[in-house]
Amino acid sequence: MIPESHPRYRSLITRERMASGARAGVVALEGLTAHGRGEAFDYLLGEETSTSAARAERVAAALLKTARHPVISVNGNTAMLCAGAIASLQKVSGAIVEVNLFHRTDDRITAITRILEDAGCKVLAGPVARHIPLDHDRGICHADGMAAADVILVPLEDGDRAEALVIMGKIVIAIDLNPLSRTARTATLPIIDEVTRAVPGITAAYESLDKGEADRLVQEIDAAQYLREAIQTIRRRLDDVLD
Amino acid sequence: MIPESHPRYRSLITRERMASGARAGVVALEGLTAHGRGEAFDYLLGEETSTSAARAERVAAALLKTARHPVISVNGNTAMLCAGAIASLQKVSGAIVEVNLFHRTDDRITAITRILEDAGCKVLAGPVARHIPLDHDRGICHADGMAAADVILVPLEDGDRAEALVIMGKIVIAIDLNPLSRTARTATLPIIDEVTRAVPGITAAYESLDKGEADRLVQEIDAAQYLREAIQTIRRRLDDVLD
Repeated sequence: MIPESHPRYRSLITRERMASGARAGVVALEGLTAHGRGEAFDYLLGEETSTSAARAERVAAALLKTARHPVISVNGNTAMLCAGAIASLQKVSGAIVEVNLFHRTDDRITAITRILEDAGCKVLAGPVARHIPLDHDRGICHADGMAAADVILVPLEDGDRAEALVIMGKIVIAIDLNPLSRTARTATLPIIDEVTRAVPGITAAYESLDKGEADRLVQEIDAAQYLREAIQTIRRRLDDVLD
Repeated sequence: MIPESHPRYRSLITRERMASGARAGVVALEGLTAHGRGEAFDYLLGEETSTSAARAERVAAALLKTARHPVISVNGNTAMLCAGAIASLQKVSGAIVEVNLFHRTDDRITAITRILEDAGCKVLAGPVARHIPLDHDRGICHADGMAAADVILVPLEDGDRAEALVIMGKIVIAIDLNPLSRTARTATLPIIDEVTRAVPGITAAYESLDKGEADRLVQEIDAAQYLREAIQTIRRRLDDVLD
């Protein structure tokens, strides 16, 4: 029980929510640590969506809108943090929602699928196989999911897997708070923002985009610029502390 | 099972170690998230002890050496990461080792005490009471431990508790990777370094310090300078990425 008097109350409550997800078998214990790393970067970024990240979210919406076979890849952390927001994005975009886990067990797949379905998602089911060229279970996905996708939204993805997807020729949209991570540096489009802000941001952008703007936005993706702007945001905040 | 081919192998292995500590009830689930935040800052700091942090570790040794009643406060993360290093520091310094938990249960106290004792620590036992003016279990400690201490080393401490100890008139040495955290900003002496590097650093410094140097070092503690230097290190690393 976190006292409400604690100055980091909101962050501690989210942390407790993730811990309860771990106790329920939804969030991997390693996922709790990954959440912590995100917390640190979000703190450095000011815990708000930057203008640069909002632009990236609009481009992400354009990529989903112009895609032939868009897929949203969901892991335990994403399901725990924003299953409802994923359902809303699926509703407006028609994208396939697929559960993909770095620490893959049937129990966790089942638990995460249930959370997503309870929130209103239609989750891709059926047999899986190792379609992604990675050792270990990390290469497993559905033939109709990531394997067939042209555009994949991966909130909170591992760097190895993001890289493998890009090598397979996929357009990879990553949501990652660390602008220095391999995931962010590898993605076709890195969104440096917190997932519970970023996913609704993409959904809102999707609803306000017409086909013409979408076609235009996907022509001009400068991934490095989004990383640079996020790093500059952090630097500015550190400068303010030093002043 | 993490593949050795993974570029972040070492960090992932430590994360697995912490996860196994959580499964064993030693590390709080919330402690895993805190570990992740530390990982992020260590990454930004270059995953090495800076010259500035090494100086802080020497001053910490001096504070322990000149203390009347020095106490090392150990939580689950610290025990899991470096019980052996805590035992070595206790051996050279004679400091009291006391288990203090933010998420306090008798089972966790017992489990952590066992890990410390197995590593060679003598752990303070006996009754506890709410000696620190904080709501909830966070105020609990031993009368002969933190309550009677003049100098307290708190690796990985919560900001609220660090602040309460300072208000009680204690000299608080914090080990914290986040130079912006309340713990780091509140401590009498903030050591911005990773705990498995910092604790052996303090022990080595303790062994090479004579009384004269120790007396001199404790006269001139500039906490703000250590924070500034850590922030500058992070800024320099971000500048390198932008270049």
